[in-house]
Amino acid sequence: MNIDNYRFTGKEKFSFEDFNTKGKCKIPDKERLIQKEKGHILKMMDFQDRFYADGNESLLIIFQAMDAGGKDGAIKHVMSGMNPQGIDVTNFKQPSTEELAHDFLWRAVKVLPRKGKIGIFNRSYYEDVLVGKVHELYKSQNFPERCKTKDVIKQRYEQIVNFEKYLWENGMRLVKFFLCISKEEQKKRFLSRIDDSAKNWKFSESDLKERGYWDEYMKAYQDAINFTAKEHAAWYVIPSDKKWLARFLISEAILKIFEDINPQYPEFPNEKKDKLFVYKECLLAEKINKK
Amino acid sequence: MNIDNYRFTGKEKFSFEDFNTKGKCKIPDKERLIQKEKGHILKMMDFQDRFYADGNESLLIIFQAMDAGGKDGAIKHVMSGMNPQGIDVTNFKQPSTEELAHDFLWRAVKVLPRKGKIGIFNRSYYEDVLVGKVHELYKSQNFPERCKTKDVIKQRYEQIVNFEKYLWENGMRLVKFFLCISKEEQKKRFLSRIDDSAKNWKFSESDLKERGYWDEYMKAYQDAINFTAKEHAAWYVIPSDKKWLARFLISEAILKIFEDINPQYPEFPNEKKDKLFVYKECLLAEKINKK
Repeated sequence: MNIDNYRFTGKEKFSFEDFNTKGKCKIPDKERLIQKEKGHILKMMDFQDRFYADGNESLLIIFQAMDAGGKDGAIKHVMSGMNPQGIDVTNFKQPSTEELAHDFLWRAVKVLPRKGKIGIFNRSYYEDVLVGKVHELYKSQNFPERCKTKDVIKQRYEQIVNFEKYLWENGMRLVKFFLCISKEEQKKRFLSRIDDSAKNWKFSESDLKERGYWDEYMKAYQDAINFTAKEHAAWYVIPSDKKWLARFLISEAILKIFEDINPQYPEFPNEKKDKLFVYKECLLAEKINKK
Repeated sequence: MNIDNYRFTGKEKFSFEDFNTKGKCKIPDKERLIQKEKGHILKMMDFQDRFYADGNESLLIIFQAMDAGGKDGAIKHVMSGMNPQGIDVTNFKQPSTEELAHDFLWRAVKVLPRKGKIGIFNRSYYEDVLVGKVHELYKSQNFPERCKTKDVIKQRYEQIVNFEKYLWENGMRLVKFFLCISKEEQKKRFLSRIDDSAKNWKFSESDLKERGYWDEYMKAYQDAINFTAKEHAAWYVIPSDKKWLARFLISEAILKIFEDINPQYPEFPNEKKDKLFVYKECLLAEKINKK
């Protein structure tokens, strides 16, 4: 159950054909992994505290998945317990008219996490090479003549690669998750949303429509992952048919990044330290307070 | 230990003279209240889930306090465990040049929570009638001739009252906390930040400087609270010398608001419900999937 087995950095190609959405884990491991995940979350809480105080890097965590892939649940499950003061979650829905009037990265740039903060993208600019590719949405978007190209999507991959390199070079860490479920598992989850009236509101007709493009989406994911996976901007393809396994692996990956960053509480500069004694004297010398 | 004892809506005046920053609670209650708070947080988590799904109202929670008053700790303690997807925390620091070039509410308006979300303001536009009043910051701010008035602060109180009324009328709930510590307690906390080297980074010279204006700040808080406390925009003045008591009272107040909102999972419209059977048929009739 090594998280590195699911980490893609561009050296090896990712292919759906070889990928088991159930993972390689035998059932008896379940309880052990759930316990281990709880431990991970406690460690993450401690790391986050130091990461926020340190304020030296920022961390961007991207979640992508097909509908019912478990993004919301994973964010809730793995990230609850963190201090909300250090986390910003952004949901990328269908772009607004305002957003469409800008370049496709614009709306993401605006909400990048500042140093010391964790930014979580629930969907992201990758939508522009996923749904954007499958439905050729770029065809109805405005470009000046000089920008028109035969391969918009390929160009966007390159733009994303450059963008993420820029972020890395300017002090941001990137973790990109694709929560990968089988078409069969999606069917199960859709049926449960239909059967359980408390879950009805989560289901929409368009979910079913998009499911019709399953193979096109898988191709789009595969290409996007293979084009944009880099050592500093790795993709984690998480087997997600089992929610508990997906959540364990996500916590494992995030913990590993924190261990790598190893944030520290800021050192108080020596020249300031000397002054602390003066401040202390001032405080102790105060007249007794009336109230 | 009734939270309503600490709730100000403008009917009764709030005065520091009558206020005990230690609260009215005897020590033996401590363990019981800590346990009760844990229960509150679990209930809040459940409410938050429905509040987010419902998406009918938004909730703005303002935290104000003197330095070392416990804002950060309270946010971390009471709000961790919430789903970060439904919370946005904003820290209002010294305004930037860009922010100063706008009206004083502008930077707050930009980050108001959307419906279904909880917005937490760690400090807020109230700073403009607190530090803004104590140091007469408005004197160095630009106003056109027609806007110059003798009583900027009084005018701002009225503007805040109107602003909060507008928010309430447009679907927002407001909770305003003033975490009230004694000057003696602040001294203790400052000394501990000086003595404990792991806490040194939390201390700055300006904290000590502001402490010199304690009485002016108390007057500014008292006036701001009395001018802006309304039934729909109540101030909770929380006795905060004991952190566990402050946190319990905060959880009590937030829980009460949630109970009052009583959010529900969205009802799936009947005309859509009929369609669900059609969708189910579609899913079940699918050819068996290769993968």
